[in-house]
Amino acid sequence: METARVNTRPVIILVAPQLGQNIGAVARIMLNFGYRELRIVNPRDGWPNPDAIVNASGADEVLENAQVYARLEDAIADLQYVYATTPRNHDMIKSIESPEGAALYHASFMQEGGRVGILFGCERAGLTNDDVVLSQGIITIPTNPEFSSLNLSHAVGVVCYAFMMALDAPEKWHFRTGKTSIANQEELIAFQTHLESLLVESGFLRDEKKKPIMVRNIRNIFNRMNLTSQEIQTLRGAFKSLRGER
Amino acid sequence: METARVNTRPVIILVAPQLGQNIGAVARIMLNFGYRELRIVNPRDGWPNPDAIVNASGADEVLENAQVYARLEDAIADLQYVYATTPRNHDMIKSIESPEGAALYHASFMQEGGRVGILFGCERAGLTNDDVVLSQGIITIPTNPEFSSLNLSHAVGVVCYAFMMALDAPEKWHFRTGKTSIANQEELIAFQTHLESLLVESGFLRDEKKKPIMVRNIRNIFNRMNLTSQEIQTLRGAFKSLRGER
Repeated sequence: METARVNTRPVIILVAPQLGQNIGAVARIMLNFGYRELRIVNPRDGWPNPDAIVNASGADEVLENAQVYARLEDAIADLQYVYATTPRNHDMIKSIESPEGAALYHASFMQEGGRVGILFGCERAGLTNDDVVLSQGIITIPTNPEFSSLNLSHAVGVVCYAFMMALDAPEKWHFRTGKTSIANQEELIAFQTHLESLLVESGFLRDEKKKPIMVRNIRNIFNRMNLTSQEIQTLRGAFKSLRGER
Repeated sequence: METARVNTRPVIILVAPQLGQNIGAVARIMLNFGYRELRIVNPRDGWPNPDAIVNASGADEVLENAQVYARLEDAIADLQYVYATTPRNHDMIKSIESPEGAALYHASFMQEGGRVGILFGCERAGLTNDDVVLSQGIITIPTNPEFSSLNLSHAVGVVCYAFMMALDAPEKWHFRTGKTSIANQEELIAFQTHLESLLVESGFLRDEKKKPIMVRNIRNIFNRMNLTSQEIQTLRGAFKSLRGER
C-alpha cells in the first residue's frame, strides 16, 4: 500500500517577460513553494539573463532547468489544462476563476498525474488575446480596482501559493506546546479550585452574593487559555507566592 | 438597515526592515489588495526612503501615511490581536496558524471592527524572540523546507492575500458568457438531434448496433461544454456547411 498522492505542481509559463530581475524573483517564489518547472516564451533580453540569477537568491536550479521557447503553442504542447492569468475577460466566453477556485478544481486532477500550466504575460501589457485563446480557463487574482497592477513575481507567487495550499493541504492551525502538553480537566479544575481557596483567604471573594458569578468569570478566563500542565504549575506557584506562601 | 460589514484590513507592521526597495514593494502589494495601514518600526535607513518610493510603483498613499515608531510596543498599542509572521516556533507555547487559518479565525472579528496587526521581521533575521512574545499568535507560511526564505514583500503579499480572500470572499468561479447566455436544455437537445440527423445522412452512424453508444458519447462531449445559445447557432451553421448545406 503506497499513497497514491503525486506531489506535483503546475508548470509556470512566462510569456514575453521583460525584466530579468522579475524572472529571478519568479524563480525564487516558485522554489519557495516547491515549484520547479519554469518555461519562458520569448524573453525580451534573451536567455540566460544575469539579472535573473542575482534576483533568484539561490533558486538557481529553477533558472538552470528553465525551458525557452519561441512559440507559446510549443511551450504548452504537452500540458492537458492551461490557465491564462489575466485581470480582463478579453471578451471571450470562458471560465474565470480565482486562484483558489482554479486550485480546488484541479487539485485532484494533478494528484492523479494531470499536467496543468499557468500563463503569465509581460509586465507592460499582460497576455494578448492570441495567448488567452490558447487556454482552457482564466485565473483572475482579486485586486483593488483602483490599484490593480501586480508585480509579475507577486502574481506568480499568489497563484503558486493557492495551488500549493490546495495540493498539500497543510494544517490551518496547530497549538504548539513543546515538551509539555495541554492540561486535562482534572488539573484545570484543581488549579481553579486552589486559586479560589486563595481568593477566599485573601478576602477577594468575601461577598457571598457576588461570589458565584465572580468564580464563574475567573474560571472562564482560565478555561479559554489552553493552559499546559507546566503553565498551571507556574501559575500555582505564582499565586501562592502572592499570598506569601512558599 | 445597513450592512454591518466593515471592509477593514489588518495593519501591516514591518519591524526593522533593511531595504527601501522591499518597503516599496510591500506598499505596492498592500494597495493591490486594498491594505492602506503600514507601520514601520526602526527602519534601518531612516524615513522617508527614496528607494521605497521608486519600488512602490504608485502606491504613494501607503508610504505617505506610514507611521514610524522607535518601539514595537508603541506600534501595536491600539491593536487587539497581533500575529507574528515567522517560520519558527521560537520555543514558545503559542497558536501557530497558516495565513488561511489566521484569516478564517479573525475575519468575523475584523468585520465587527476588531483591530488586527501582523508583524514581519527584517530581511536578514526575521522577528526576534522579544518581538514574537508580544504577539497573540504566530502565522507560518508553508514553504519548501529546502528553500524557505521568502522575500519580504512576497511574505507580506501572501498573508495580505489570504486575509483579503477571507474578508471579501470573492467568487471562486464565474462562467463568462458576455451578451449571450448559456443555452437551455431545449436548445441543447435540438442541436444534438440536428447533429445526429446530419451524421445519419453522412453515414457516420450507419452501424445500427453501435449507433446508441456513439450518440451517447457525442452528447456527452457537447453536454460538458457549457455552450451558449450563440455558440450553438455557430456550430449548427458550421456542421450544416460541412454537409454542403447553406
